[in-house]
Amino acid sequence: MTAPVVLINVFSVPPHQEAAFINLWTEALERSKNEPGFIDAKLHKSLDPNARFEFINIAHWESEAAWQTAFDKLPGAALTQQVPYEQNLALYQVVVQS
Amino acid sequence: MTAPVVLINVFSVPPHQEAAFINLWTEALERSKNEPGFIDAKLHKSLDPNARFEFINIAHWESEAAWQTAFDKLPGAALTQQVPYEQNLALYQVVVQS
Repeated sequence: MTAPVVLINVFSVPPHQEAAFINLWTEALERSKNEPGFIDAKLHKSLDPNARFEFINIAHWESEAAWQTAFDKLPGAALTQQVPYEQNLALYQVVVQS
Repeated sequence: MTAPVVLINVFSVPPHQEAAFINLWTEALERSKNEPGFIDAKLHKSLDPNARFEFINIAHWESEAAWQTAFDKLPGAALTQQVPYEQNLALYQVVVQS
């Protein structure tokens, strides 16, 4: 089995829409977590409300292909219409750790 | 003991300076990991070299104060003079997980 991939999505959410964003993200999680290859996901919220990126999702998938298949099923456009968030999404691997 | 805080630092690094950045970050890690309250740190590199943020550090500290004390000891300005990276640093807590 190839090493799991780390999906990190860095979000900027308009002011006063944090609660709506959390609900939206949680709905998307409910769909994704039953998809083949899903391992885990954690939505992080900044302690400082003025942080450049208020939310960051860190998730693990068994492979890039498994994540892509699940991601393609999500109604991306519909989500951003409900809450106009900015996302910066990419797959990562750990290169240094301690 | 208060719950650990999650430090996430989202970096954008100029092209062809990835190796220099990894060395720089690793030197800073060598200093920080011996500071009181340090738990762990993982530097993630994007699989796609064209990702908006090529590097993301995800670290855990016993408290905000412990992290701040250690961070204040780092020669921040000297680091960015060696490699002119952009950083977006904040402390986070997990709000949703699965």
